[in-house]
Amino acid sequence: MTHKKINAMLLFRCCRCLTQFAPFLTQRPQASAAPAWYAIRLVGGGSSNRDQRWEYPRHGRSWTQAVAGLLAGTGAVLAYGLHHHKAEEANAVSVPVKAKTSQLPIFSQEEVTKHRTLQDGVWVTYDGAVYDITEFVAMHPGGDKILLAAGGALEPFWALYAVHNQEHVLNILSEYKVGELRAEDQKQQHSVASSDPYSSDPERHPVLRVNSLKPFNAEPPPEILSDSYVTPSAIFFKRNHLPVPQVDPASYELHVDGLPGGGLKLSLEDLKNRFPKHTVTATLQCAGNRRSEMNAVKQVKGLNWGIAAISNAKWAGARLRDVLLEAGYGPDVALWAHHVQFEGLDKDVTETTYGASIPLNKAMSEEGDVLLAYEMNGEPLPADHGFPVRVVVPGTVGARNVKWLSKITVSADESASHWQQNDYKGFSPATDWDTVNFKSAPAIQELPVQSAITVPANGAVVSRADEEVTVKGYAWSGGGREVVRVDVSLDGGKTWQVAQLRSGDRGQAPEPSPPPGRAWAWKLWELTAPLPPEAQQLEIVCKAVDNSYNMQPDTVAPIWNLRGVLSNAWHRVKVTVRDDED
Amino acid sequence: MTHKKINAMLLFRCCRCLTQFAPFLTQRPQASAAPAWYAIRLVGGGSSNRDQRWEYPRHGRSWTQAVAGLLAGTGAVLAYGLHHHKAEEANAVSVPVKAKTSQLPIFSQEEVTKHRTLQDGVWVTYDGAVYDITEFVAMHPGGDKILLAAGGALEPFWALYAVHNQEHVLNILSEYKVGELRAEDQKQQHSVASSDPYSSDPERHPVLRVNSLKPFNAEPPPEILSDSYVTPSAIFFKRNHLPVPQVDPASYELHVDGLPGGGLKLSLEDLKNRFPKHTVTATLQCAGNRRSEMNAVKQVKGLNWGIAAISNAKWAGARLRDVLLEAGYGPDVALWAHHVQFEGLDKDVTETTYGASIPLNKAMSEEGDVLLAYEMNGEPLPADHGFPVRVVVPGTVGARNVKWLSKITVSADESASHWQQNDYKGFSPATDWDTVNFKSAPAIQELPVQSAITVPANGAVVSRADEEVTVKGYAWSGGGREVVRVDVSLDGGKTWQVAQLRSGDRGQAPEPSPPPGRAWAWKLWELTAPLPPEAQQLEIVCKAVDNSYNMQPDTVAPIWNLRGVLSNAWHRVKVTVRDDED
Repeated sequence: MTHKKINAMLLFRCCRCLTQFAPFLTQRPQASAAPAWYAIRLVGGGSSNRDQRWEYPRHGRSWTQAVAGLLAGTGAVLAYGLHHHKAEEANAVSVPVKAKTSQLPIFSQEEVTKHRTLQDGVWVTYDGAVYDITEFVAMHPGGDKILLAAGGALEPFWALYAVHNQEHVLNILSEYKVGELRAEDQKQQHSVASSDPYSSDPERHPVLRVNSLKPFNAEPPPEILSDSYVTPSAIFFKRNHLPVPQVDPASYELHVDGLPGGGLKLSLEDLKNRFPKHTVTATLQCAGNRRSEMNAVKQVKGLNWGIAAISNAKWAGARLRDVLLEAGYGPDVALWAHHVQFEGLDKDVTETTYGASIPLNKAMSEEGDVLLAYEMNGEPLPADHGFPVRVVVPGTVGARNVKWLSKITVSADESASHWQQNDYKGFSPATDWDTVNFKSAPAIQELPVQSAITVPANGAVVSRADEEVTVKGYAWSGGGREVVRVDVSLDGGKTWQVAQLRSGDRGQAPEPSPPPGRAWAWKLWELTAPLPPEAQQLEIVCKAVDNSYNMQPDTVAPIWNLRGVLSNAWHRVKVTVRDDED
Repeated sequence: MTHKKINAMLLFRCCRCLTQFAPFLTQRPQASAAPAWYAIRLVGGGSSNRDQRWEYPRHGRSWTQAVAGLLAGTGAVLAYGLHHHKAEEANAVSVPVKAKTSQLPIFSQEEVTKHRTLQDGVWVTYDGAVYDITEFVAMHPGGDKILLAAGGALEPFWALYAVHNQEHVLNILSEYKVGELRAEDQKQQHSVASSDPYSSDPERHPVLRVNSLKPFNAEPPPEILSDSYVTPSAIFFKRNHLPVPQVDPASYELHVDGLPGGGLKLSLEDLKNRFPKHTVTATLQCAGNRRSEMNAVKQVKGLNWGIAAISNAKWAGARLRDVLLEAGYGPDVALWAHHVQFEGLDKDVTETTYGASIPLNKAMSEEGDVLLAYEMNGEPLPADHGFPVRVVVPGTVGARNVKWLSKITVSADESASHWQQNDYKGFSPATDWDTVNFKSAPAIQELPVQSAITVPANGAVVSRADEEVTVKGYAWSGGGREVVRVDVSLDGGKTWQVAQLRSGDRGQAPEPSPPPGRAWAWKLWELTAPLPPEAQQLEIVCKAVDNSYNMQPDTVAPIWNLRGVLSNAWHRVKVTVRDDED
């Protein structure tokens, strides 16, 4: 492991501590330095009970798994930590840790650097103070990856993962303070302080609803989403796991590995000139779309998405199939290869890049329509959507549509990345962080049938004088399965009406009907129905049916899962009918 | 139209009349001969109100559609008619129509034969009597196809469609009696009386639960079904639409049409010797499996299947793909062709054969695994399962797996057959027989995710002394999507446990894991769980998840549809916990 690799990610861990108090809080008399703030929150009183500590989970294996689950892409962690905070406020916290005047010793950076293992003790510095976090290591939800930050400053990590810039995190840290850093070492730290890795992120449209600023995750307002069949790129939902990498298109290289005859290296121009350009209209959806509805049942871990972590665009680029054939793919490869792995240029402080994989048969199928896209809606890809090249895997969960693509590897195995192995999987409602076994579930690829109501909004008021109500929404299904019907109910699901489906913008020619199994784009739908005469309140419900006749489940609780993915129960909004004389 | 074509199917129609009284019953003063039995049933009194008649549906178009829906394969109609009758009793009814002595005129067969149109009147004979059914034609749920029987005897038709051998059908008919058939013509009729077209149907295993004898439709008891991963052919569910054809394997010919270079004709030996033999373990499911649960919500039309219209077998034969390539399929064909149509050798009295089609891409895909199967579970196909050759379309609704295959046609269009166009489609719960437009829904191909509990049976009693309960069942999904999890609840869906899945028989090696998208076979599952200490009754529920993470809907009513297909809500059984001292 390089030094750089060893330095990292203290930050993740706090999240679990901060949000899963109860299961961890038990008697643990051997503990010494207790996080007072924590205990106060927990017992609801003012005393700092030094014997009350949160405990290690019971099973080591489960612990590892829980950690893996938590790592969950930085965005997921961020969201969890930020659950009760506006993203905009996340970077504004400034707690004067040093304000606690101390009579503690002064250490040199050299001394701090010696403490980088559990044997030698694990020390870190933050804002001029020194902390011995040895005891915290095992309690950190990120597990022993906390050692990556050992012996150095926290600031570079916290700059990357803004979740830590919160008062309660600093309060936990303060419990571990053992001294001050020597003044000249503080100065040196300041001079090498890393810049904000998100400082070069692009500007975003102000209409977006931000779930997390760093990394950037945001969705458009639902009523705007359903205004366009092809979502304008500026309001297309953004789901970044890491800072947006700056890529020079002139020097961009795409590496294709794992095929006979050695690797292939392609420039952006190669990709544009050496392969036919294909255009596909495809809807992308985040696995966590509608997670907030699962959160309402019972808290889950992940960005608290509303119903708009889904959008539809026209993508253009080379077919992955064509590139793999050019790189030496042949029938022999299919005898041993089963997956195609992708790596992005986006990376964390340990130089770990974002990665994912898809099944080989999806990649190679003439009907799979997998693109190495360099255009979105007729323009070069925007920075947030993977400039200069991203993978577009129609019908497949957003997480496999790797952006800022740097490398393609044909392989016998799935991507070993965290996001493929220990995230983006579905579990039973009975599975919790103590029992989850990520190996027991397949990585999400195709998504299930989905629909939601974009208009009216939950809590809207309609006038009885209008005599009718118009309901709008979207519907989509994974795997190229075409949505063939959307049923809408105004009475909570007792009676239903069939909505009108649309495959294009109003007044324009609809998209041509897709061949079977290649319906990659959503349908917009609309229903105008008479207001039920007596109703004071409407519970409007929608459910879609795809051409495999899969239907959405009725309710959220039975599909609840600890990561809050695959939230596709009937969507419900409540609307008040106003009787007025005006 | 041949005379033979003109003769047919009086029979279907009664079904609708017999079961959809209310919407048809209105004032219709111009009517003359009223079906008294009918009126009696309707008004609940003893008087035969001659002015009360069932009316034509309001919209001509809807009427046609309703009829089309009703035709629904003869089995569906049969089941509807037989809903309150055991199938075994269907052929035992014998009402002495002639016992009503009449002073009506005597007609010759020659005279009867003149009445074969609405202009000339529509006459039929039955058991020596002559009936003028002109007025009934428009009321017959089968629509103007009733004219096929005009001018001749009903017996050949009623022999084919045993549903008519019921008292209420004969009572309706009696209202239209206009005379007696001349004695010598009666004798001649007897001498040419058609034999029972079902007389050469094979013997069946007595354990089967018969839903309809003619045509034969039956399912195994659920607890036996889940005893074997590969269902023994004898208890594999049987779903025939027509009599089982007798086919001489030596003279059997399979015709392949629609491809460049003229047609291809293959003998059974050709099929076995000229193409590689492929073996596929695939589950077949009737679209109407679990229809009885929809019937419990609100009556639907179709065989009242329990949960066992699904079975799993090892099929072997030539790949359809290989045969089509041999017959001249090439890339040019894909430019105009979209479907592959199949015709069976099973036919009705009008010589109409059973037919269906599948999308061309399913037929031609190397991963589609569509077989022209000549073996089932290592033996030649049994007569009930399509001897000598049937299509097996893995992952696709049973109705497209055409048996007794005679003809394959590559085509721009779907099969024009009733079963493709006007049956085996799904609709909203809001759609009824007056509003249904069969063109508005796609033909069912891939089926949605499914599971059911085979043990314990609904109403079973378990002893508290056993301390635990074992629940067993099956789970499957269409389109090659693998079932990845089955959740089981003992408390009606409040809490869940994950069942153990099996891909083979206990004690034997499981089937090898299928490639992605080619999981054609079901999973059996089992869960042994502690009895909840206080529970007097358990509501056991199961729901499956496939690898596209599609889930079953919670309840039946919101997926109810007029044909009772696609019944895949959570399966529920209620079990009583007995406290006893023994």
